[in-house]
Amino acid sequence: MDLAAGKLAVEVVERDDGCVFTGDARYYLAPFRNWWPQERRAMRFVRGRVLDLGCGAGRVSLELQRRGLEVVGVDVSPLAVEVARKRGVADARVGTVATALQGGELFDTILLLGNNLGLLSGERQGRQLLRTLAQLATERGRILAGSYDPYDAASELARRYYARNRRRGKLGGVERLRVRYRQYATPWYDVLFASREELTELAAGTGWRIARFIDNGPGYVAVLEGSPEA
Amino acid sequence: MDLAAGKLAVEVVERDDGCVFTGDARYYLAPFRNWWPQERRAMRFVRGRVLDLGCGAGRVSLELQRRGLEVVGVDVSPLAVEVARKRGVADARVGTVATALQGGELFDTILLLGNNLGLLSGERQGRQLLRTLAQLATERGRILAGSYDPYDAASELARRYYARNRRRGKLGGVERLRVRYRQYATPWYDVLFASREELTELAAGTGWRIARFIDNGPGYVAVLEGSPEA
Repeated sequence: MDLAAGKLAVEVVERDDGCVFTGDARYYLAPFRNWWPQERRAMRFVRGRVLDLGCGAGRVSLELQRRGLEVVGVDVSPLAVEVARKRGVADARVGTVATALQGGELFDTILLLGNNLGLLSGERQGRQLLRTLAQLATERGRILAGSYDPYDAASELARRYYARNRRRGKLGGVERLRVRYRQYATPWYDVLFASREELTELAAGTGWRIARFIDNGPGYVAVLEGSPEA
Repeated sequence: MDLAAGKLAVEVVERDDGCVFTGDARYYLAPFRNWWPQERRAMRFVRGRVLDLGCGAGRVSLELQRRGLEVVGVDVSPLAVEVARKRGVADARVGTVATALQGGELFDTILLLGNNLGLLSGERQGRQLLRTLAQLATERGRILAGSYDPYDAASELARRYYARNRRRGKLGGVERLRVRYRQYATPWYDVLFASREELTELAAGTGWRIARFIDNGPGYVAVLEGSPEA
């Protein structure tokens, strides 16, 4: 909201091991030309009716609307949805896939961009969300999910965190985070960063298979399509 | 250390009411031409042997050395002192005025710049530190202390915090903070932001009087000189 109003805003991400990281929040408002290359390239795989999960301030929804597509943006943050609407997203809804959609709504493309693959949260929850998304997808339905390989060039600090996760039986790249900004703090939540191999394994048996990875160094957008085994 | 090595670094300041704020840490390395105007103007009041309290990465010490002055930099942060030394501060010491100085060391100018008036911490501790500094000062000794009036154009959020302080019998502008950066966190400590009136009152009876304020909107550098009443 502050950024959209032209103020400077730095996002503070706190991790449950006591680390804090800061990020330039401007990416949430970035126009298409400033997107990461893998996300720009992923746009050619978008078709039909689109669900933009974790739409935030509407960065991706706005671009797709501009291209004439029908987009439903969904975000758990009421303030983000308010900003998305103000910026012109025609159909932005507060909630989750479980609460924000009407019975029978189907989508040809489901977007988890901007590292929103993180919403898979972990192994069990991730499989469950992929199965839920399979029920929301048309026959030709696709998921585009953005993440990066957390093990690629990981710092010593990151490696320790991933090792701790594995000792606890989790996928290495599950980060327990909360986002803070001035007097605001989100609840703590798990964000999954997965290697390509981990994602491939996670998708097995959920109704989805990896059709391709759009790569950019450690970063990628995974294109998932319907699996006949589902 | 990261900034001095050319990395991007954002300082996260956490306040005890759950707020977080971010700051551009580059000011700690800023050359004279990029300093706040009141600090540039304050340099004409520096003379003789100088104590730079809370010298950090040596921003002020380096400039004064360059001008040919003898400067002792003191900081509680061993890493900051390491950076100050690497950047060329000839005499940078880890500790406080109580631990880092040798018996009998005296100074003509004592610097509390870059909001280091904050080291006064509060009413009681502030008076005590001013009395200690009086014992370290020569006859013509001066303190240059930087701060800003916290009540000038304070946000609603800030006003609530100041009111809470006053209900607890503290000066309004005492902020209980800790600084976080990646895996590092300082202990919690009190930082005083004082109006000109509050500082004037605080100095009374400590051996110091306000000789002048060098003003820049809410910001100022106070010039304190020896008080005959001391």
